[in-house]
Amino acid sequence: MRRPSGEDRLIARFFRPLATHPGALGLSDDAATLTPPPGSDLVLTTDAVVGGQHFFPDDPPDLIAKKALRVNLSDLAAKGARPAGFVLSLALPPTADESWLEAFAHGLGADAQAYGCPLLGGDTTRTDGPATITITAIGTVPTGAMVRRGGARPGDRVVVTGTIGDGALGLHVRRDPQTAARWRLDRQQRQHLLRRYLVPQPRNALAEALRQHASAAMDVSDGLAGDLAKVCAVSGVRADVEAERVPLSDAARAALASEPALIEMALTGGDDYEVVATVPPVATAALVAAAKAAGVALTEIGSIAVGSGVDFRDQAGNALLFKQLSFSHF
Amino acid sequence: MRRPSGEDRLIARFFRPLATHPGALGLSDDAATLTPPPGSDLVLTTDAVVGGQHFFPDDPPDLIAKKALRVNLSDLAAKGARPAGFVLSLALPPTADESWLEAFAHGLGADAQAYGCPLLGGDTTRTDGPATITITAIGTVPTGAMVRRGGARPGDRVVVTGTIGDGALGLHVRRDPQTAARWRLDRQQRQHLLRRYLVPQPRNALAEALRQHASAAMDVSDGLAGDLAKVCAVSGVRADVEAERVPLSDAARAALASEPALIEMALTGGDDYEVVATVPPVATAALVAAAKAAGVALTEIGSIAVGSGVDFRDQAGNALLFKQLSFSHF
Repeated sequence: MRRPSGEDRLIARFFRPLATHPGALGLSDDAATLTPPPGSDLVLTTDAVVGGQHFFPDDPPDLIAKKALRVNLSDLAAKGARPAGFVLSLALPPTADESWLEAFAHGLGADAQAYGCPLLGGDTTRTDGPATITITAIGTVPTGAMVRRGGARPGDRVVVTGTIGDGALGLHVRRDPQTAARWRLDRQQRQHLLRRYLVPQPRNALAEALRQHASAAMDVSDGLAGDLAKVCAVSGVRADVEAERVPLSDAARAALASEPALIEMALTGGDDYEVVATVPPVATAALVAAAKAAGVALTEIGSIAVGSGVDFRDQAGNALLFKQLSFSHF
Repeated sequence: MRRPSGEDRLIARFFRPLATHPGALGLSDDAATLTPPPGSDLVLTTDAVVGGQHFFPDDPPDLIAKKALRVNLSDLAAKGARPAGFVLSLALPPTADESWLEAFAHGLGADAQAYGCPLLGGDTTRTDGPATITITAIGTVPTGAMVRRGGARPGDRVVVTGTIGDGALGLHVRRDPQTAARWRLDRQQRQHLLRRYLVPQPRNALAEALRQHASAAMDVSDGLAGDLAKVCAVSGVRADVEAERVPLSDAARAALASEPALIEMALTGGDDYEVVATVPPVATAALVAAAKAAGVALTEIGSIAVGSGVDFRDQAGNALLFKQLSFSHF
């Protein structure tokens, strides 16, 4: 009568080893408990990755797990928050067998450790649909110090981490094997774009500096143009971006050299998981120095002004026109 | 260039009105912020409901929303926690059109208000599979005061809220329309079981009393027998339950009168969303009085002893033997 259920065995075998936080209670309770540091706010974010939408069902399960956690870590990074832990909800099709789960848990555990964000609790269920992995990540900031979208002010500089467009271009390459040849990408460039789509590099190393210096920030997940437009809308300002200053990888540059119109995909396609931030002129040097110390590439791409909307202009000063600013599921 | 995406319109129209907590920032940011009351712990729980697993795709969307929130509220109740808010992740098939979403948001908003648990943030995405609704609920308790599974001690009494078995019997009735006739249920009894499956009644009104008086508690979601066995395993004790004292609704009694073997389904089938708790003898009267004041039925069903496992015994003293103690997805 005391045989544990399949669900309990699965949790004990694959996920209990990840529940290193004392508040996770070894995943042996209904809920986790978290004692917030005095003088801190919790920062809460939730994002799901769905098979067929955010990853391909045959992607390596360890990398699917990393993506699921990292898209959430990226939100914490943009908010200037330090990761405290996460809860995981797994809806799994029958194809997610033990070897799939073992690899998934391995990837998840590696990232939980690397980013200092332990598993606090979770839920597992079956689905007739694609694997759906929902993570809620919890971070902390000093009380009142979360970096918001609404703080951009005229005169602020606009900066962005890493490189933009790789994820959207990588998805295109993944979907259509002819693409890499058409864009004249070498093997390394092709691999770079595919990898950037599959495994985001969240900028948590920059979180503390963003909290200290940024006036506003946002995780770039649905396209730089649309996401910066959201910062501007909430802040009640406009942004002027010099398109040629937007940082691109060698691979993205190669693709754009073959098809210049791909600039639209790069700037509006999403899946970047970089941070776009605004920073007052007096704080720019400090943020740049902090980024350098943290090993995170940071590029100034434009400025904030009175008004509304976002303009991307080419070197000749002509505005780039996009069909839509952002990726949208709806 | 500034037309909001479909996803943004959907959030603004249906979900922003629910984001009444100041930390939700009107759903206009990457993350929510929550300032925990000084001297408190956060209690975190996550549960998904998946079409075809936890509800039927043609169930009314307002009730699907209520179920999604209530299964999480039930965990907070069992832990003695006061709801602080929740984040919502929606993976929706194309069949979830605007009228579906409107009804869903209406049900969700009504419960968020009724239980004092506001929407803090969320995520929406498409899926090729069934609607998958994942909620992470956050509650608060005084530091160190979360009611755990591990506190049951020999001599404690075992109590359970509400009635047991309705959810599992209701699911059976829902799946096979012949069932109600075979069990000789009248229309009202049939409706009662169906409703109990579809819309749980979480016992948040009892949370504060559980925190003050219970030595251990757990949300009964996978079957009373298996869930009580989990409390015993974590506490390192055994439980002896008098099966005839387990509270049953009139409808469940009618079904069992027709088919006595249904007692197994009632005790192991799950979907109860009641609370099973253990309480020291000195505190039992206080918990009973608090339950009465809160309008929550509370029934003493057995006791905790030295040993391991759970025994359910009939009036003749014979142990009931079950094929399995709990529902499991795996």
